[in-house]
Amino acid sequence: MSEPIWKKTGASAAPTQAVMQFLAGEDVVLDRQLIAYDIQASRAHVAGLAEIGLLQPEEADALRQELTRIGDQLATGERVLDERFEDGHSALETWLTEALGPLGGKVHAGRSRNDQVAVALRLYMKDRLVQLQRVCVAIAEQLLARAQREGDLPMPGYTHLQRAMPSSVGLWLAGHAEAFIDNADLARRTRDWLDASPLGTASGFGVNLPLARDAVAEALGFPRLVLNPQYAQNSRGKIELQAMAALGAATLDARRLAWDLSLFTTSEFAFVDLPDEWCTGSSIMPNKRNPDVVELLRASHGVVAGARAELEAVLSLPSGYQRDLQASKPPLLRAFAGGLQALQLLAPLLDAMSWNQDAMRAAMTPEIYATDLSVELAQQGMPFREAYREVAERIAQMDDQDPRESLEKRVSTGACGDLALARLEARLAPLKEI
Amino acid sequence: MSEPIWKKTGASAAPTQAVMQFLAGEDVVLDRQLIAYDIQASRAHVAGLAEIGLLQPEEADALRQELTRIGDQLATGERVLDERFEDGHSALETWLTEALGPLGGKVHAGRSRNDQVAVALRLYMKDRLVQLQRVCVAIAEQLLARAQREGDLPMPGYTHLQRAMPSSVGLWLAGHAEAFIDNADLARRTRDWLDASPLGTASGFGVNLPLARDAVAEALGFPRLVLNPQYAQNSRGKIELQAMAALGAATLDARRLAWDLSLFTTSEFAFVDLPDEWCTGSSIMPNKRNPDVVELLRASHGVVAGARAELEAVLSLPSGYQRDLQASKPPLLRAFAGGLQALQLLAPLLDAMSWNQDAMRAAMTPEIYATDLSVELAQQGMPFREAYREVAERIAQMDDQDPRESLEKRVSTGACGDLALARLEARLAPLKEI
Amino acid sequence: MSEPIWKKTGASAAPTQAVMQFLAGEDVVLDRQLIAYDIQASRAHVAGLAEIGLLQPEEADALRQELTRIGDQLATGERVLDERFEDGHSALETWLTEALGPLGGKVHAGRSRNDQVAVALRLYMKDRLVQLQRVCVAIAEQLLARAQREGDLPMPGYTHLQRAMPSSVGLWLAGHAEAFIDNADLARRTRDWLDASPLGTASGFGVNLPLARDAVAEALGFPRLVLNPQYAQNSRGKIELQAMAALGAATLDARRLAWDLSLFTTSEFAFVDLPDEWCTGSSIMPNKRNPDVVELLRASHGVVAGARAELEAVLSLPSGYQRDLQASKPPLLRAFAGGLQALQLLAPLLDAMSWNQDAMRAAMTPEIYATDLSVELAQQGMPFREAYREVAERIAQMDDQDPRESLEKRVSTGACGDLALARLEARLAPLKEI
Amino acid sequence: MSEPIWKKTGASAAPTQAVMQFLAGEDVVLDRQLIAYDIQASRAHVAGLAEIGLLQPEEADALRQELTRIGDQLATGERVLDERFEDGHSALETWLTEALGPLGGKVHAGRSRNDQVAVALRLYMKDRLVQLQRVCVAIAEQLLARAQREGDLPMPGYTHLQRAMPSSVGLWLAGHAEAFIDNADLARRTRDWLDASPLGTASGFGVNLPLARDAVAEALGFPRLVLNPQYAQNSRGKIELQAMAALGAATLDARRLAWDLSLFTTSEFAFVDLPDEWCTGSSIMPNKRNPDVVELLRASHGVVAGARAELEAVLSLPSGYQRDLQASKPPLLRAFAGGLQALQLLAPLLDAMSWNQDAMRAAMTPEIYATDLSVELAQQGMPFREAYREVAERIAQMDDQDPRESLEKRVSTGACGDLALARLEARLAPLKEI
Repeated sequence: MSEPIWKKTGASAAPTQAVMQFLAGEDVVLDRQLIAYDIQASRAHVAGLAEIGLLQPEEADALRQELTRIGDQLATGERVLDERFEDGHSALETWLTEALGPLGGKVHAGRSRNDQVAVALRLYMKDRLVQLQRVCVAIAEQLLARAQREGDLPMPGYTHLQRAMPSSVGLWLAGHAEAFIDNADLARRTRDWLDASPLGTASGFGVNLPLARDAVAEALGFPRLVLNPQYAQNSRGKIELQAMAALGAATLDARRLAWDLSLFTTSEFAFVDLPDEWCTGSSIMPNKRNPDVVELLRASHGVVAGARAELEAVLSLPSGYQRDLQASKPPLLRAFAGGLQALQLLAPLLDAMSWNQDAMRAAMTPEIYATDLSVELAQQGMPFREAYREVAERIAQMDDQDPRESLEKRVSTGACGDLALARLEARLAPLKEI
Repeated sequence: MSEPIWKKTGASAAPTQAVMQFLAGEDVVLDRQLIAYDIQASRAHVAGLAEIGLLQPEEADALRQELTRIGDQLATGERVLDERFEDGHSALETWLTEALGPLGGKVHAGRSRNDQVAVALRLYMKDRLVQLQRVCVAIAEQLLARAQREGDLPMPGYTHLQRAMPSSVGLWLAGHAEAFIDNADLARRTRDWLDASPLGTASGFGVNLPLARDAVAEALGFPRLVLNPQYAQNSRGKIELQAMAALGAATLDARRLAWDLSLFTTSEFAFVDLPDEWCTGSSIMPNKRNPDVVELLRASHGVVAGARAELEAVLSLPSGYQRDLQASKPPLLRAFAGGLQALQLLAPLLDAMSWNQDAMRAAMTPEIYATDLSVELAQQGMPFREAYREVAERIAQMDDQDPRESLEKRVSTGACGDLALARLEARLAPLKEI
Repeated sequence: MSEPIWKKTGASAAPTQAVMQFLAGEDVVLDRQLIAYDIQASRAHVAGLAEIGLLQPEEADALRQELTRIGDQLATGERVLDERFEDGHSALETWLTEALGPLGGKVHAGRSRNDQVAVALRLYMKDRLVQLQRVCVAIAEQLLARAQREGDLPMPGYTHLQRAMPSSVGLWLAGHAEAFIDNADLARRTRDWLDASPLGTASGFGVNLPLARDAVAEALGFPRLVLNPQYAQNSRGKIELQAMAALGAATLDARRLAWDLSLFTTSEFAFVDLPDEWCTGSSIMPNKRNPDVVELLRASHGVVAGARAELEAVLSLPSGYQRDLQASKPPLLRAFAGGLQALQLLAPLLDAMSWNQDAMRAAMTPEIYATDLSVELAQQGMPFREAYREVAERIAQMDDQDPRESLEKRVSTGACGDLALARLEARLAPLKEI
Repeated sequence: MSEPIWKKTGASAAPTQAVMQFLAGEDVVLDRQLIAYDIQASRAHVAGLAEIGLLQPEEADALRQELTRIGDQLATGERVLDERFEDGHSALETWLTEALGPLGGKVHAGRSRNDQVAVALRLYMKDRLVQLQRVCVAIAEQLLARAQREGDLPMPGYTHLQRAMPSSVGLWLAGHAEAFIDNADLARRTRDWLDASPLGTASGFGVNLPLARDAVAEALGFPRLVLNPQYAQNSRGKIELQAMAALGAATLDARRLAWDLSLFTTSEFAFVDLPDEWCTGSSIMPNKRNPDVVELLRASHGVVAGARAELEAVLSLPSGYQRDLQASKPPLLRAFAGGLQALQLLAPLLDAMSWNQDAMRAAMTPEIYATDLSVELAQQGMPFREAYREVAERIAQMDDQDPRESLEKRVSTGACGDLALARLEARLAPLKEI
């Protein structure tokens, strides 16, 4: 690892190798996911320094060009951010100085690593929340498309995992669609909430320069500033928790959907078939065909919930930057990497699965129509409680029926007789715009 | 406890007392916090039934009057929701039937306990998020008012709990103010996100009636519907988690503020004095004067974080109502009761505390001006890294200075020389409207 | 509420009502669960003071008699610990002084509320861990008794919720039995680990008296001391977390068992019947018979997991007593109350359920014997991988078989052909002793 | 990636690349930490197969030699477990077959990947719990050694972060020592609790072979078996949670110790000096010397708490192996890697720090002796409550004193006048044996 940038001349002793490794953690590896945002912010910062005359136009041009070049090389793999550096910020300063001499060091005027990290993380979270919104929209679209196509297929409806009432594939599909519409909506609201630039707050006290904070923020696409430098540091962790709360809402719903599929692909339910591409076998049982993807989808919420807990555990701190905040990076990056990977498989999985109509029809045994009957009696004027007791006594004598007749009668908004798909589409439409 | 409303005639055996207690949990006690919302929703539901002709106008009037009477009696304590009932919903039906005979039972047409609970909880959460927004606004106002009054007082600024740079009481106050502006904003966005009526989705399948769902929702102040009945159930727990995430953002910031006060009231820092009303003594040490309120404020985030974890733990479920969801109520109500109680003490505490100027001034030892000096050198053209090393070598020889001079030079937006209080006020203003 | 015991004469101002309520929290209500332990420890402390001559024998006798009387009255309800008191410790001192005059105050010599709380909580946890061990033993006994009786019943075995291999009711019962044997074992080990007396450490610094700490500990049934007074405070929360970890292991296994029963009581599996006493109905669907107890058992782990998270969140603190630690009481008491209530229903539920042999036999479709076949081929010398591929190709042609034949061949220790019930009994036996 | 070992001839479609990556996760990388245990268990399994005649002695020898060779090559880096393989178990089988032909496949007789994973994880956890015990012992030894050397140094004692009573460096050191003695003890008890061999339970049903399970377990150092095959799977996650609970007890105490050091190294307290090797600087403030190691130690509990939460989130499952359990590996390995790395720095840090006697003496202001005085009055016969009030009124007039005089009087066991170091050593001694 190269000399740390805070190393003073003649300091008597440097940290040992074990201490340096502990301090660095996985920082430099994690920063591979963040350095592009750091470069983006550095370019804007350089423009801001030029605007207030702290850099000559040609100096600013040289720095910006070199930043672009470094970014391009990192993108192609020509240049690599590796363990020689303490973190991405040190690497950037080293590279700039190698290329441009003392000018390279001027990029650091008016900022600190603290606001560099803060702004890079805000840009990262905005990007990931856009991806989250997009993947939730894609899942909802897939679900609504199937609901349009095959929404009328009868299917037993369950509460307490007990057969409850006749339902339809459409109700199931549209229900999960509405969940992911809410999730896309939450991703957008969360992004709007945290969409503020901390750049120009330095290490929590601002600087002795009339920085062009508003212009720099605008150039980076932030509609407003984190105004207070102390809050730029104090908000670290807090905004990450909200970003992960939005992600967790989606993985929570993915878990519920995966639970349904896990049950529906048992031999006992057998409502859903998954093609071979989505199944695996057992190393010991030749007969097995396992829905592993579904199970790992179900498990995928864990990494998000755990990351939230990990971050919560380090945030009991007084104001101002404390090194503990470095520990907020790994859970954030891990949660979004794991969560988004899982969510991205959901739309293709929903596309690939098929319904087993016979099994669903066979599971619609006569007693499933009992509520229909009691509602009819109530509509004829009998108080509902009385109708309920009346029907309860007749259950064993009920006959099989055509489920479609029952479904058509379920006319309240959103129910099988009126799935309200158009209204769901109408909520989804604006969320397709980022 | 009275007979459960789902009891069928001639059922051979009823649950034992131990089982009934386990099933009921604290439901009926918790429902004291929810029954007013249930009554409000029941009144709207009755109007909706009348609108579709399922109730005669005079029936609807009678039911609505009786609901109002029950609500009033509960509010005054004349009527009490107690352990004789399984839960608030059963109590309501019993009371209506006692007063109105068979007509009382008709209120249940077209709905289920499931959507009754769901709508009452949504109304509850909206109310609590309004309270959260209000208390965050009040805290921010208190902080900004003090910042206006005494923002220029010098105070050492810390990072890593080490003296870092000259700072001001204003920077500290405005920093916490911006935190609570963000928290008020988050409370509002979260309320908007979950502001949808599940009423009319029954037990997750809708009903065989053309319910006036939109009109009922509008009467209850919901701008839109939870359209899909399955999602009305599947969203339980999920929306509670987001409501608690918003609450947790505020208690997290209260914890950070409490940490600051806990340090500032030590004899070693001694920056802040708390009046006797905010302190307690020790049962064994006559000299003690302890900032217990501050410490319990610091602890108050725990109940919110724990409630979120408790709820997370029960939400690994397939679609549709499962009784597990009953376990989502206690953590939600506990989190908001505990979290709001703590937050409500924050504004008066911030009003009561006073600053110890001498102690803060004495803590501003000369080396605190080192960054100022290196920035000056950089402004004179020296590359920042070089200036930094130059100053690092001179530190022991630095003289005391007037901190106000240093603070005036910190002119970047939000820093001590430009606290941007007007811009913070401008963000706060619209949040005062609910 | 009465005057706090740390109130000094002439203090200018007392906390407001809102502050007092915030400080007190639910302490006095929670202390109803703890005051018996406080009385027990107070009696031992009085004896210890007499031993070192700080109390005359007749003083000690009077105090001990009065403590016993108070304890008896609290047990019968003749005396009530209510909101007039700040907490149980204040109440005790007040009551003693009311009855005995100034002598009542002498009970506080050589101790602080801090070690009073600490010792009461250790006694409480020891008791609850005994209850935990007992309930786990009872569950394991029930499971092993059924395994003895009906262990041979064939049942399909599942992995990935897919039919995997022929299995038996005995394998399922013995598997859950071994889980609860481990849980009983963990309860005991955890109790042993925390079985140390903090009494005599006062507020974290010990006292100026040669307290008879060892004798007092012995009288209270502690085999050793928490030696260091600082650690007596620092260990608060930490030991609670371990006690709850032991509880959580049991509720985690209860959740898994409840999941099995939730699936087995669906119409689709239908392996298990629950009698009416363990089921409930729906308020809207006359046909429903819901396994609510099973579902709430499944949810019961939540309160334990949440309590652990709540406690974790308050424990980021420097050494020594901080008032934050008061917040460790509610989650601990809530977790044990909720967790033990749920676990206590498990043995009777396991006693009440019955197996549906026909449904289980019908679910043992021919392909479930595929692994048997490939193992046979391997035993005849074919490399296992080859046998596996061979059988995989023949699956569709496999015939139905008698599952008992297959089960008998499963002879590895613990498998269906050798359930090892005697060895499980042997592990359980010593855990029946407390 | 090579063909999965469960791939059947002629299967129509294989999972896509994205699905395969999702299924594999980081498994093969994580297995680098586990493969040595897999090899160890495989060697014992081979011996067991030979014992029951399923392998000829020369076959067993060949397999064991090859396993040893592979293990050696992995240890030196000559052979690498990389992404070509699905996981470590597949790699092992591939390598054996490459080297030994069809004989290589025979190692899989009588076991499944499920029990391979389970046994490797148990061996891994036992090893890590040994490391945990060792590092806790080393920390306690360091603390006790310093306590022997400099335990008499006076130091103010704090409660509520307020100066409370005269205390000593010895009380602080011994307090943390007792914490780590408890932690070492917990590590050992936890290891004993989970010290059971699941090998020979295959995929949760055992096998059709009279496996020598006891002999194999003994060869691997397990004193007993996980008897029931279903429990061998159901205990996955549960035992990991307990292993992490033991680890978390230690990182929790490390956090508390780090909090103390964080405060003690402020300019305001200034009780502790850290040498340059343990500090870092700021990239912007030339005056800073930051205790980053201390802060990251304080943060290190987060990774353990988060890992527990992550694992909790995936364990809501029915009995038997589900693929979700694969998600239990990453948090376990991450928690032990991060937690042990942090703990290993603690003993050297405690060795390197030094006490600033003058600062501690100066902080012992006169009112700190108030409790001493009230105890004296009580010893002279005044009821304690009265003495307390008397002293409270005199506080402003108290004089400075020699703290050593006060410390000598604190004679209760464990207090400054009797640190009980010999008794702590006596508890530590048996924990040095593994």
